[in-house]
Parts: sequence; structure tokens; C-alpha cells
Amino acid sequence: MADNGISRRRLLGTAGATGLALGAAGGAAGYAAAPSETPEQTPSLASLGADTVMFHGKHQPGITTPLQSRGHLVAFDLTAGAGRKEAAALLRRWSATAERLMAGKAPAGEDTDVARDAGPSSLSVTFGFGHSFFGRTGLEKQRPSALDPLPDFSSDHLDKARSDGDLWVQIGANDPLVAFHALRAIQKEAGEAARVRWQMNGFNRSPGATARPMTTRNLMGQIDGSNNPKPSDDDFEQRIFVPASGEPQWMAGGSYVVVRRIRMLLDDWEKLGLKEQEAVIGRHKSDGSPLTGGTETTEPKLEKAGADGEYVIALNAHARITRPDQNGGSAMLRRPYSYHDGFDKDGEPDAGLLFVCWQADPLRGFVPVQRKLDRGDALSKFIRHEASGLFAVPGGAVKGEYVGQRLLEG
Amino acid sequence: MADNGISRRRLLGTAGATGLALGAAGGAAGYAAAPSETPEQTPSLASLGADTVMFHGKHQPGITTPLQSRGHLVAFDLTAGAGRKEAAALLRRWSATAERLMAGKAPAGEDTDVARDAGPSSLSVTFGFGHSFFGRTGLEKQRPSALDPLPDFSSDHLDKARSDGDLWVQIGANDPLVAFHALRAIQKEAGEAARVRWQMNGFNRSPGATARPMTTRNLMGQIDGSNNPKPSDDDFEQRIFVPASGEPQWMAGGSYVVVRRIRMLLDDWEKLGLKEQEAVIGRHKSDGSPLTGGTETTEPKLEKAGADGEYVIALNAHARITRPDQNGGSAMLRRPYSYHDGFDKDGEPDAGLLFVCWQADPLRGFVPVQRKLDRGDALSKFIRHEASGLFAVPGGAVKGEYVGQRLLEG
Ligand code: HEM
Ligand code: HEM
Repeated sequence: MADNGISRRRLLGTAGATGLALGAAGGAAGYAAAPSETPEQTPSLASLGADTVMFHGKHQPGITTPLQSRGHLVAFDLTAGAGRKEAAALLRRWSATAERLMAGKAPAGEDTDVARDAGPSSLSVTFGFGHSFFGRTGLEKQRPSALDPLPDFSSDHLDKARSDGDLWVQIGANDPLVAFHALRAIQKEAGEAARVRWQMNGFNRSPGATARPMTTRNLMGQIDGSNNPKPSDDDFEQRIFVPASGEPQWMAGGSYVVVRRIRMLLDDWEKLGLKEQEAVIGRHKSDGSPLTGGTETTEPKLEKAGADGEYVIALNAHARITRPDQNGGSAMLRRPYSYHDGFDKDGEPDAGLLFVCWQADPLRGFVPVQRKLDRGDALSKFIRHEASGLFAVPGGAVKGEYVGQRLLEG
Repeated sequence: MADNGISRRRLLGTAGATGLALGAAGGAAGYAAAPSETPEQTPSLASLGADTVMFHGKHQPGITTPLQSRGHLVAFDLTAGAGRKEAAALLRRWSATAERLMAGKAPAGEDTDVARDAGPSSLSVTFGFGHSFFGRTGLEKQRPSALDPLPDFSSDHLDKARSDGDLWVQIGANDPLVAFHALRAIQKEAGEAARVRWQMNGFNRSPGATARPMTTRNLMGQIDGSNNPKPSDDDFEQRIFVPASGEPQWMAGGSYVVVRRIRMLLDDWEKLGLKEQEAVIGRHKSDGSPLTGGTETTEPKLEKAGADGEYVIALNAHARITRPDQNGGSAMLRRPYSYHDGFDKDGEPDAGLLFVCWQADPLRGFVPVQRKLDRGDALSKFIRHEASGLFAVPGGAVKGEYVGQRLLEG
């Protein structure tokens, strides 16, 4: 297995894309732009199926893992009869299954065969605990205050049935059947202990479809993820992960994930002209560069004014308002999937972003930034938050351990 | 553009998979089976984004085109004010957009940018006309009798709102954002002339996830498509396409598509053991070979009996009952997508097959075979037909022509 290659990719946090992909189409048709910078590393597409993500490690997979082209988010509630003991057994089963599947092995017992013939295709499985989990399992004392319910935001349109949950599982893979296979295996392993509460499907670019090395596009057509914290940043670990000395101890090496199903009002959005769309974000749509110039990785010049005396990057531009330096240092790692569940009765697409963001502390990450967005940035009128969840995602399991063991047997 | 390469792939009708993909995972983990036969041709994954399907040709794309990993099916109804003239203008716009996008160019006018940076990724767009189209456009005289409504089947559980429609569009691509981009462009081009009636999303294996060259798996874990008619068969053209001398003349080179949303009752299915599952189909799950032995491409020995005196391939086995030689020669080209729209209230997956099959005449293809399945084969109790459509898909446009022009201006 290409563990070394993979580890390097995980550290880079880049999507599995290749610089080779666009030779013909880009050249002949001119639609595909040249990559805005040289890829630091171009994973080989020949190994798409064989690519493996490590299950064991300091952190769980699926956080700094390059975005896969297919994703499932699923929340479970413990059943009435299930307590701490059943939850521990469940996490033990789930961890064993995740480890096997991520290594490209069949699950123990009868298999559905849906992933048969395919390699693991960068499958990752990530487990988290919701606020309600701790009451049901008598573990209130272990509940981190960071799991306190998110504040209500005035613009929320939350569907409670698709929000929260005792347990949360994130599945990603570069093959949709491999991802579905894992989802089904995880659901089956839940047995009598837990039931699906809600489930969502998402997607991103296929590896090889584009020559861009860094980031994906969302369904508004924007390059998304440009100014994410990078694993090479000095403060990356500190911002995203709970430190070894952190509280509660069972969360050492863990992270808090905020999940928001954010509908995009695409019919309204697409009525805007290109310039208006770019003003909303403060970056160019073509290559993600700031409106003040440069490339995707250039720092925006927030103070720069145009001939009209107005800021080039407007005061309500999304990419200005959300910056750490505008929010007392608050930062998060965004790792979203797009979703599209068809059209509603008015012919409007039920589509948008499964916004998934990671941080060591939601009160120093999502919450202050969303509070500000809630007062209204330029993007707000084109989106609607329809579901929400906050989960404690413990550190990765070491060999012989299962995810959450330090909580459940601590 | 790799037109020659693509044409060869289209003729082969094989999925875009590579023999390289499984080196590591297959060897190390042993889950992935070796391919059951040598691929006749292994398209290069390095060109996933650049791969192009031809818009112009004798037949429309998306029929013998290798299955893409992402698919959208969408039906439109003409609006009250729209007649033949508006329909003609619509098909002209749609054809121009399909041609541009399939060549990897941006659509005319303002673009959403969702496919930007990506190559066409084997995008195909296919257009068809439903029974109701002809009345709305005053073209009843041109309506083929082959479009007569399908008979009712006793096991049907059809949702009318997700069935039929004036116009049908099938979109396939190896990148989900490229497919969504095309769907949105097509919807936008409909303008005031037509509204979305229903829309479904599907998927298949990603190129490169498996070394198997021929066929994909469905969500029951079976290899699906093994005994499809092959473009190299003597009677392939005759079975699948309306001949040049066919009736009505505007359908020359065209084909009829039957679309069925078939829910799989996976909770019941997965309770069966492997042997029982294999008996239901009459083929091995591992490699698709008939229960009477050989490989995926070996002819089943229908008359062979086991030690117990019973047929090895049961009389009600799906792959026995559906064979042309059991149905007076009736044959169809199956080109399905899997679908998964989450879980319903009981925790059962809303998942199954977007069954799409092609034939020169539905009365010599889908209808007689489904009549027999309706009386009950071994598979019937594990599936439920939930939506249905039948559309006339005209021949491909030659340069300068639009799809359906021979009907609309004939
Ligand atoms: C559908 C909803 C959203 C869309 C389409 C969207 C889109 C974008 C885009 C295009 C960028 C600029 C490129 C980049 O750095 O990634 C950006 C930046 C950012 N967004 Fe969003 N966003 C959405 C919702 C949110 C939410 C809910 C939050 C947090 C509460 C958020 C936080 C951020 C942050 C922190 C940045 C980076 C700012 C920086 O450091 O430069 N976004 N977003
Ligand atoms: C969810 C529903 C279905 C599933 C899971 C399914 C699955 C299969 C499988 C596994 C095979 C054997 C491998 C192959 O040759 O592809 C097969 C063969 C076949 N099926 Fe189905 N099928 C379904 C519905 C249908 C329907 C509705 C029809 C047509 C009315 C149909 C027609 C055929 C035909 C014609 C063959 C090939 C028989 C031969 O020539 O050997 N199937 N199917």
C-alpha cells in the first residue's frame, strides 16, 4: 500500500487531482483554465482504486484527508435499550469495520459485495459524539462544554429531524459504490443499538477531472477552500485539534465538527452578473484570486480602495468578514461536500453545501464567525441554513484500540 | 481530442476502467478479485477529464457510450403557451448547449462556472420525446405507435409525478460537478418553454476504482450488464436502433428508451445467504459467471441438473427468465445507474436501480420481458417499480442539425 504517498497527500491536504488530466480538452477547447500554480504533488490517477487512507493515527481520518469525490454524512440515535455498554460495543464494531474497509478488505461476516473488485479508493470513516449521547450513556460528567448547543442564529431555518443526533459518522471515498458499501456496513453494524436519525449524500470533483491541484468548486461555481488553514501553518494543530493536555482528556487529539446543511438559492444567485457575484465573495470566480489581484494564494489587500473611493473588497464581502483577523483569530478548517437532491415543487434545485468545519473549539471557530454572518454578509441572502449538528470527534485510535474507547472505558 | 480513442471505446461499450488500478490494494488486501478476463482495451485514467464523447453521429450519445460514474435523468413538460415552434427552438438551444459542453466549452452566455477548470469528463447529453409531447405540439400524426403507453403491470407501484413527461434528458459524466453544470445549463435553456417534471440522480463505479473491464456492480452487489447485447453482435444495430428505412422516418437511427425507477428492498435482500442470492439471479456474485460454471462471458447451461435432479439455474432465476431465447428473441441494451436518496422513515434505504434500457421496439424488448417478470421471477420480491417512462430518442444530429429537427421541421 502506498502509505507513504498517502501520508504525504494527507499532510498537504490537497485533493487527489492530476496535472495530466487536461492536456487535450484544455488545449483544444480553451474552457479549462491553466492551474494557477504548480501542484506541489500530483498523486497518480492510475492508483485511484488502490489509494489508502490510514485508520490508525493521532487524529481520525477524514479531517485532513484530501476531499473525496463522494461523501455520506449520517447521524444515529441510540435505541431505548442501549446504554454505555452497548455504545462501547458498537464503537468497537464500527472501528473494526472501518479499519477493514479502509484497508480494502471485506467486512467480517456476510458481505453485500457492493465494493467487491474495487480498491478502497481513499475511503475514510470518521466517528463523533453529539450532546445527547452523554445523557443516554450516563457520561454527563465527561461531556465537554464545547458541546453545549450552538446558539440560535436569527437566519436559521433548521429542520430538527435532520439536525443533531447521538452519534455521527462521516464517510468519504473516490468511488460512490465503495462509499455506499461502507455506509451500509456501518448501518448494519448498528444492529439493535442505534438507528439512523438522518443521512445526507454529497460530492466533490472526481480526481483527474481537473488540473487544479488545490481546491474544489462549489455549486455557486466558486473555488472553495482557498484560505483554509494549512497543515504546514505553525498554529494548524492548535487551531484544529484538542491538545494532548486538553480537556476532557478523552478528547486529546480530537476535534469538534460543525455540520450545516446550507441550501444555495441558485435561481437568485445565477441572476447576478459575474462582477456582482465576485463582489459578494471578494474573490475572482475564475481562479479564486482576491479582487485586489494576484493568485489564489495571494493575501487580499483589505485596505485597498478603487477609483470610486470604495474598498475593492467590500465591507460585507464574505471572504473579508470570515477572516481570522476580522474575528479575533477565530479559524476553522472547512471540508465540505456539495449536495443535490433534485428539484423542489417550484423547480428550484434542492442543492447547496454540506458545510463541514473542524476546530479545536467551536467558540473560537464556527460560532463567532457565524454570528457575524448571521447579521448579514453579502452572501447571506443567497443561502439558507437548513440543518445543523455539532459533534465531538475524538482522537484517532492507536492499534488495538477503538475510536472513543478513552471515553467509554475511561 | 481523443476522438478515435473514444469512438473505439463507444463501440466496445465498456466502462472506462483501467487494468492498473488494483495493483496495490488487490495484492495486499486480497478483497479485490482479479479481473475475470483480459480487458480488450484499457482507457487511460490520466485523461479522465479530457475524455470526450462525440455529439454528432448516426446515433445520439449516451446509448452505447461507456457508463459514466454520475448520471442525471430529467423530464420536462412544455408550458401552456409552448407549441411546436417553441419546442423546435428549445431543441435547437439544447443541442447547441450539449454540443458545446460535450466538447469541453463553456455554454453560450453567462456561465455558472461550476464545470470550470474541469475537462468534459466524458459528458454525454441525450434527448427524447414522450407520448404527451405529440399532442401538445400538434404532431400526433408523427407519433410512433411504439410510444403507446406501456401496459400496466400488476406489480407496479408507480408514482405518476415521477413518471412520463413531454421531454426527457439523460446526462452522464465522470465528474459530478460537470454533470450538475450540464443539468443546470439544460434547465436554464428550457426558459419559458418547459418546466422540470421530475429529476433523478444516479451513479456507477468511478473509472480507476476497479480493474474489472466490462461491467459495473449494482447495489445488490451483483455484476450487472454481463449478457448485454454487444455492438459487435451481428444483430446489435437491428435490435437497438430503428433502421434507416424505419417508421416513422424521423426516428431513423433512433432508439426507444424505457426508464424505470426500481427500488431495491435491500433489508430483505441482505438477509439472504450468498447461495440464495446467487440462486435468485442464476449467476455467481463474485465474478458474474453462470451457476453452471465458466466466466462472466460463458453461456449458461440452462438444461444442466444438479445431483438433486433440479436445474442448477432455477426455472425462476432472473438471468434465465430474461434471456432472449426465452422471450422469442426479445432483447434490450441495459444501461442503468444506481440511485440512493437516503433512508426513509423506517431506516430502509431509498436506493435501487435507475433502470434504463434501449431497444428498436419496446414490444420486442422491454414489454414481453417485463410481462414475464411481472408474473414473478425469483428477484421480484426484492424489488419494486416506483416510476416509469417511455421515450422516443431520435437519431443523432449531423453537423448543422439539431436533435429532433427531422420531427419538428419534417
Ligand atoms: C453555502 C455557504 C457558503 C459558501 C458558498 C461559502 C463560500 C466561500 C468562498 C468562495 C470563500 C473564499 C475562498 C476560500 O477561502 O475558501 C469562503 C471563505 C471562507 N468562508 Fe465561506 N462559504 C459559505 C459558508 C460559510 C460559513 C457558514 C462559514 C462559517 C460560519 C464560512 C466561513 C468561511 C471562512 C472562515 C472563510 C475563509 C476566510 C479567510 O480566511 O480568508 N463560510 N467561503
Ligand atoms: C433492480 C432490478 C434488477 C436487477 C437488480 C437486475 C439484475 C440483473 C442481473 C444481475 C443480471 C445478470 C447479469 C447480466 O447479464 O447483466 C440481469 C440480467 C438481465 N436482466 Fe435484469 N435486473 C433487474 C431488472 C430487470 C428488468 C426490469 C428487466 C427487463 C424487463 C431486466 C432484464 C434483464 C435482461 C434482459 C438480462 C440479460 C439476460 C440474458 O440475456 O442473459 N432486468 N439482471
